[in-house]
Amino acid sequence: MRQVYISGEMVPEDEAKISIFDTAVTLGDTVTESTRTFKHIPFKLDRHIQRLYKSLKVTRIDAGCGPEEMEQITMNVLEANLPEYGEDEDLWIVHNISRGVSMPGPDPTVRSGGATVMIHTLPMDLTGWARFYEEGCHAVTSMSRIIPSQSLDARIKNRSRMAYTLAEMEVKLVDPQAQGVILDADGNVAENKGGNIFAVSDGVVRTPPAQNSLAGVSRETVLELAETVGVPTQQTDLQPYDLYTADEVFFTSTPYCIMPATKFNGLSVGDGKVGRITKQILTAWSDLVGMDIVKQATKQLEHSN
Amino acid sequence: MRQVYISGEMVPEDEAKISIFDTAVTLGDTVTESTRTFKHIPFKLDRHIQRLYKSLKVTRIDAGCGPEEMEQITMNVLEANLPEYGEDEDLWIVHNISRGVSMPGPDPTVRSGGATVMIHTLPMDLTGWARFYEEGCHAVTSMSRIIPSQSLDARIKNRSRMAYTLAEMEVKLVDPQAQGVILDADGNVAENKGGNIFAVSDGVVRTPPAQNSLAGVSRETVLELAETVGVPTQQTDLQPYDLYTADEVFFTSTPYCIMPATKFNGLSVGDGKVGRITKQILTAWSDLVGMDIVKQATKQLEHSN
Amino acid sequence: MRQVYISGEMVPEDEAKISIFDTAVTLGDTVTESTRTFKHIPFKLDRHIQRLYKSLKVTRIDAGCGPEEMEQITMNVLEANLPEYGEDEDLWIVHNISRGVSMPGPDPTVRSGGATVMIHTLPMDLTGWARFYEEGCHAVTSMSRIIPSQSLDARIKNRSRMAYTLAEMEVKLVDPQAQGVILDADGNVAENKGGNIFAVSDGVVRTPPAQNSLAGVSRETVLELAETVGVPTQQTDLQPYDLYTADEVFFTSTPYCIMPATKFNGLSVGDGKVGRITKQILTAWSDLVGMDIVKQATKQLEHSN
Amino acid sequence: MRQVYISGEMVPEDEAKISIFDTAVTLGDTVTESTRTFKHIPFKLDRHIQRLYKSLKVTRIDAGCGPEEMEQITMNVLEANLPEYGEDEDLWIVHNISRGVSMPGPDPTVRSGGATVMIHTLPMDLTGWARFYEEGCHAVTSMSRIIPSQSLDARIKNRSRMAYTLAEMEVKLVDPQAQGVILDADGNVAENKGGNIFAVSDGVVRTPPAQNSLAGVSRETVLELAETVGVPTQQTDLQPYDLYTADEVFFTSTPYCIMPATKFNGLSVGDGKVGRITKQILTAWSDLVGMDIVKQATKQLEHSN
Amino acid sequence: MRQVYISGEMVPEDEAKISIFDTAVTLGDTVTESTRTFKHIPFKLDRHIQRLYKSLKVTRIDAGCGPEEMEQITMNVLEANLPEYGEDEDLWIVHNISRGVSMPGPDPTVRSGGATVMIHTLPMDLTGWARFYEEGCHAVTSMSRIIPSQSLDARIKNRSRMAYTLAEMEVKLVDPQAQGVILDADGNVAENKGGNIFAVSDGVVRTPPAQNSLAGVSRETVLELAETVGVPTQQTDLQPYDLYTADEVFFTSTPYCIMPATKFNGLSVGDGKVGRITKQILTAWSDLVGMDIVKQATKQLEHSN
Amino acid sequence: MRQVYISGEMVPEDEAKISIFDTAVTLGDTVTESTRTFKHIPFKLDRHIQRLYKSLKVTRIDAGCGPEEMEQITMNVLEANLPEYGEDEDLWIVHNISRGVSMPGPDPTVRSGGATVMIHTLPMDLTGWARFYEEGCHAVTSMSRIIPSQSLDARIKNRSRMAYTLAEMEVKLVDPQAQGVILDADGNVAENKGGNIFAVSDGVVRTPPAQNSLAGVSRETVLELAETVGVPTQQTDLQPYDLYTADEVFFTSTPYCIMPATKFNGLSVGDGKVGRITKQILTAWSDLVGMDIVKQATKQLEHSN
Repeated sequence: MRQVYISGEMVPEDEAKISIFDTAVTLGDTVTESTRTFKHIPFKLDRHIQRLYKSLKVTRIDAGCGPEEMEQITMNVLEANLPEYGEDEDLWIVHNISRGVSMPGPDPTVRSGGATVMIHTLPMDLTGWARFYEEGCHAVTSMSRIIPSQSLDARIKNRSRMAYTLAEMEVKLVDPQAQGVILDADGNVAENKGGNIFAVSDGVVRTPPAQNSLAGVSRETVLELAETVGVPTQQTDLQPYDLYTADEVFFTSTPYCIMPATKFNGLSVGDGKVGRITKQILTAWSDLVGMDIVKQATKQLEHSN
Repeated sequence: MRQVYISGEMVPEDEAKISIFDTAVTLGDTVTESTRTFKHIPFKLDRHIQRLYKSLKVTRIDAGCGPEEMEQITMNVLEANLPEYGEDEDLWIVHNISRGVSMPGPDPTVRSGGATVMIHTLPMDLTGWARFYEEGCHAVTSMSRIIPSQSLDARIKNRSRMAYTLAEMEVKLVDPQAQGVILDADGNVAENKGGNIFAVSDGVVRTPPAQNSLAGVSRETVLELAETVGVPTQQTDLQPYDLYTADEVFFTSTPYCIMPATKFNGLSVGDGKVGRITKQILTAWSDLVGMDIVKQATKQLEHSN
Repeated sequence: MRQVYISGEMVPEDEAKISIFDTAVTLGDTVTESTRTFKHIPFKLDRHIQRLYKSLKVTRIDAGCGPEEMEQITMNVLEANLPEYGEDEDLWIVHNISRGVSMPGPDPTVRSGGATVMIHTLPMDLTGWARFYEEGCHAVTSMSRIIPSQSLDARIKNRSRMAYTLAEMEVKLVDPQAQGVILDADGNVAENKGGNIFAVSDGVVRTPPAQNSLAGVSRETVLELAETVGVPTQQTDLQPYDLYTADEVFFTSTPYCIMPATKFNGLSVGDGKVGRITKQILTAWSDLVGMDIVKQATKQLEHSN
Repeated sequence: MRQVYISGEMVPEDEAKISIFDTAVTLGDTVTESTRTFKHIPFKLDRHIQRLYKSLKVTRIDAGCGPEEMEQITMNVLEANLPEYGEDEDLWIVHNISRGVSMPGPDPTVRSGGATVMIHTLPMDLTGWARFYEEGCHAVTSMSRIIPSQSLDARIKNRSRMAYTLAEMEVKLVDPQAQGVILDADGNVAENKGGNIFAVSDGVVRTPPAQNSLAGVSRETVLELAETVGVPTQQTDLQPYDLYTADEVFFTSTPYCIMPATKFNGLSVGDGKVGRITKQILTAWSDLVGMDIVKQATKQLEHSN
Repeated sequence: MRQVYISGEMVPEDEAKISIFDTAVTLGDTVTESTRTFKHIPFKLDRHIQRLYKSLKVTRIDAGCGPEEMEQITMNVLEANLPEYGEDEDLWIVHNISRGVSMPGPDPTVRSGGATVMIHTLPMDLTGWARFYEEGCHAVTSMSRIIPSQSLDARIKNRSRMAYTLAEMEVKLVDPQAQGVILDADGNVAENKGGNIFAVSDGVVRTPPAQNSLAGVSRETVLELAETVGVPTQQTDLQPYDLYTADEVFFTSTPYCIMPATKFNGLSVGDGKVGRITKQILTAWSDLVGMDIVKQATKQLEHSN
Repeated sequence: MRQVYISGEMVPEDEAKISIFDTAVTLGDTVTESTRTFKHIPFKLDRHIQRLYKSLKVTRIDAGCGPEEMEQITMNVLEANLPEYGEDEDLWIVHNISRGVSMPGPDPTVRSGGATVMIHTLPMDLTGWARFYEEGCHAVTSMSRIIPSQSLDARIKNRSRMAYTLAEMEVKLVDPQAQGVILDADGNVAENKGGNIFAVSDGVVRTPPAQNSLAGVSRETVLELAETVGVPTQQTDLQPYDLYTADEVFFTSTPYCIMPATKFNGLSVGDGKVGRITKQILTAWSDLVGMDIVKQATKQLEHSN
């Protein structure tokens, strides 16, 4: 059985529990990172850990150890769990760090102990997304708007995500398979519940500036890969008009890397097929990590049927 | 030892734990209510349960039972725990209902089971607030702004509260004992991390409209009690100017009922003493529940020293 | 054949045409009113004409005659057309007044002639709405937001309505029969593409203030009728939360008067049935005009099947 | 007499009429493009048609034919009308495509037929603007603000233009010859009723990003020509301060190409004369199209006097 | 010669000077009140002093004495100056209190001495406004918007008024005699450079809530007088539409009390004459103070010609 | 004694006074510039004068002479005062130009004379800032927000600065030595009460675009110097998150040139020490002006103790 790390101890996954008085539960007061492996090697783990420590800093949570130690612990958790995964199977490594156990009262920062550090792995289950690599998904705008940075900066990767959950439910009113496009207060494209959004028009790959959305590691990777394959990129405000009239649209996120969207609010994107540049960048990503990202997901889907 | 209700079972408080895969932990996807007792009788439990079911509805969480059954379960939890409480001691009854255990994936609504219903009691510990009944607290404006209703309506009483936690930390930079006044995106007074805000000027008790803040049960009680004692009330937008120039300012929340503020951003409110009308309403509240609210808290403080 | 009034002349409906150089076509530069009859008597025609002249004033369009003469012309158009309508059939009387024919150029106000005054009647076809009287409709929030008053005040009843048309298409992505709820820039409920929105909670009928939406004559009628039947009313900001948690929701508009909504964004409103107070006001309206509004519509539906 | 194309037929201009039940009239539900010729050759017709099809897509209007056919039809209309124009006279080719004839009812998308495709030509009458090439015009800020993209994206070139019409009337209160500068909701410079706005400061040509305004073909041409003549360009937010302190200001639009502004809100722009860089780009444009744009307009003005 | 009070001393008006290092000059860091007399008796001086002390509190300026003493000093200044005024002539009494002399540096609150208290009187010169009592003025919307309360609350009556000065210059581009109507960031009517704005529609006197504008003493007086003469009042958001379509519009300010507006942005208000209710309230004001306000002003105008 | 220039005359500093009826006092209606010398030579005086004339233009104040003459007068004032300054002592040269003396009335632009031109010098007293060169200061976000450009553009360097004064007082509630970081209405970093704000992350120097803040001459100098020493720069929106997670933060302003911040809202910036790139640019500045900026300030501090 998979083992979960909780504040210094390894416990079997089905015993991985925390007190209902943990601020993770009482306040959603948890910062987080999700890293995936390719061929069992964590992808850009240092970048994820680095961002985790930015989130910890801004939220004033003391994880009890520095980034180097955190990286070491993470590698230990990975190794302890590797026997549970097949050779072709990749892992999701998730960090959740809450401020710790606290009783409600006048000062939310008073705690009875230190932070709760949780690290778990999960099989990188892509069956829900796999067919989108070929068909593309249906991107749909939610009615609700992103939490503005002056309330809670999206770059603090956190677990107070009810707003995202409700927005995602709204888009599923249009299509149960829809993937959400959440706008900011001015109507600019912000982000998906767990990823970033890109539009390709006239050969240029464009995505909103990071201020407005999670500064995703996958987003960063796409910007780098595009440059590598000679496709110009631009970080600029986008509005629904830009998605409606784009030649290609895709999402990026840690698990699926790139998810093409071939429909936006009921209308075809471009010619309604996964776009050339989207495929090009996805291929470059596969090359970078030395395995076929799409194939792995497709295989999973076949086995699950 | 106190017993906690978790989805049908009673467990001792120190074993009250939930899976780290519960959406309570992974998404802050929990609705909540806090009710307090006066002389062991829950205050307006029906109103709290009613509001809980509004939160459940808007978040599309199915608690698995209706409000009547929930009230019955709550009373059972209360009774089971009463032996743990002294005669003069009151309780806090807290409901937390999350969407339940779920593995991450493309659809956040897919769950392996039903909602996680948590009900626990805690001693109504007022030592942190008790001295404010006499001295008044220091109300301080946070730098961050409330989450706007188009992102997540504050009337959904929820546990995705990292934004409130960070705002409260900001005000404690000014004064470690400060109580936060969070403004909305336009700079209007919205709410405190766990309560509502009132200003008394020229004999009129004023508070922001409920759209802008949690429609608190204590808030509602103050509006009723003010009417009872002949003080006119008004629900209207307030700005910091209104608090600076008010004769009296106070907060309301379930645990302390009314907490006077005698300082605002470093300046005295009125003459710097707890105001006449504030006291009048607080007395009316004590009368309503048949016990001296202030005395109970003060005693606690004495015993704790 | 029905006759249409165009700037002083009566023409058969199928010849009722205007130049493609009319600013009605080139700029959507048209103010409008829609009045319906009950038993062939126009309902509150004076109020409609009065509002029409407010729209004319603010848009600086000179209709070429005053409100009294306009009312007289309108009655003439009605009389001329009455023979075309069955006894049980009611009429829609529509005014469209554009600035007139103009060639494009540096000054949009230069015209070759006076305003184009169009008045036509149409059978009050309610077949598309009739079943909603019994079942209630599905109210759905659009992704797009209302045009703010600082761009174009919604109280100018006008024909530059592409924004409303696109918003209505968005809600039909959720449900082809859905009726749109358009929010303002702050996420407050504003209006429907052609009507106002009401929520009934705890026995109080509430609707947004007129500044935020067309100050509808039907809206006004509901506020008067509610008072008549002893139901308190309130003009206040509403948010989606208020519609989700309302006991009853309904729309008002000239053709259908009142259209109950029993679903909002996929969730039942109240118990999912048309509400008691909604029915009460609808009945009062029928009483006021001396005919059964619902019955008339239902009959139409039966005949059309 | 000039011939107008309406949905497949050519009709004489004075018979070019559409039903008052066309959504062009009832909803301003029309997308549009305006192309001009230089020496009887349409300028960038393919770009205009391309943008027209973007507008059609976002508004979900089906024109009944694709862009190639539309271009062919357009050329036919042009040819059919050329005999009506003098050798030195150029044409304005205007496309207006509405959703078509529809009776009012619950669903604005139900129509009795297909889209109404209107294509007409007009003499490129520049007499109203001609003197501005030499003197410059007076640019004036309107009181009303642009419709925000979350209500109706300005890049959908449409005929719901009452807001623009009213804004232009406001600026004419200051000066009957004034040309409007409409700001967005934040007070940034957006666009003119029918064109884009540029400011030249310290040798750099700057204009707001396209998200905020119609992505004009003339705007695009200026950005290209500036590069050609070695003047750096920048797409960036501008505020009235930037226009007040600019060395040069000009508008761009299809008919006049470039219209210098030498006054802004009553103050001289730069030294109050048409600027060097403005002239340079205008000359480059004349070179590009092989005719003197200013001379043509000036001649017109002379003949009209 | 008139005498001016500066921080404890009386000096002749032409020697009433302050250091250029006073924060009044270097920061506009001055709070202020303007009171007028009727028949040499200051009108509501206590209310003005009370508001002055609210401004002092919020700006954290210590005037060096309390409100009672300030009132006494004010009466002394008045008496010392009365010999300079004719029997029919009334006075303007102006308080300006700056934080005092300070050299620039890292902390703007460091001063070399106490506050600078300036009190002067001036003849209530109404010649610039007198003809508006009969003819009404031309109210015009400025392009610039009011400073929002989250930047500087308008209820702090202060001398950092460059924004108001520039807005007033903008409206004078339309008409050199125009009086400004400044809107807030959302396009709601806020205030005039030195007064409040009222609209009368259907017999109801309406004005924006005080949060959005200076809570003027004259504004308060109008609300009281309207009640006295039986005219209902309402404090509510107003937009330009409300002024365009109002039956009557007027401004209120300390010097002129009430100034009717008979034109708004170039269009007649109502029938273009000073309204009945406006006159009624103005008469009630004259009655209240025992002198004919209009007559006094008109006489001044006659003498000045 | 130092001499001050006031509208053509030189007066001793302690007699440098202006009428309390000057609009500088009554309206904060003054534009300003502050220039410092290095080794008695004014730094970029032409750039300051140029910006001064932009401010004069936008505010429609006529200084009575052109920029060349103003520069000449300034040099004269400098020379007249040089004997008052030690060899190692530098000067602050301050221009304040108000619209001039005016009596209150309906038109704020009516004046009895021309503009009041004030030019004074002061010793460049850096004792309040000197220790920050070594230790870094504590940057703190104010609760109040910057005045938006649609109310009063920050690029008009003006003396209506009460809003800045109050914001600076707010941050001093957190720490009496704190230096303010004022946000704009959307929560973006705007400016300090008298300077600009920079963040260094991953080796890139970033600062908000000039539209949002005073386009400081020191800001401009830093952008130039960074380029000189090979550090890339970026003008982009910044939020508090960017300051919390930056490696280095600093302010720029005329007196201190560069002031490092080593703490932001109570948290260390980077490693809590003055950063490498900050020092590098400061050194480049010292090189540029041929004197050690830090040393001069430190010496001052030593002497003052």
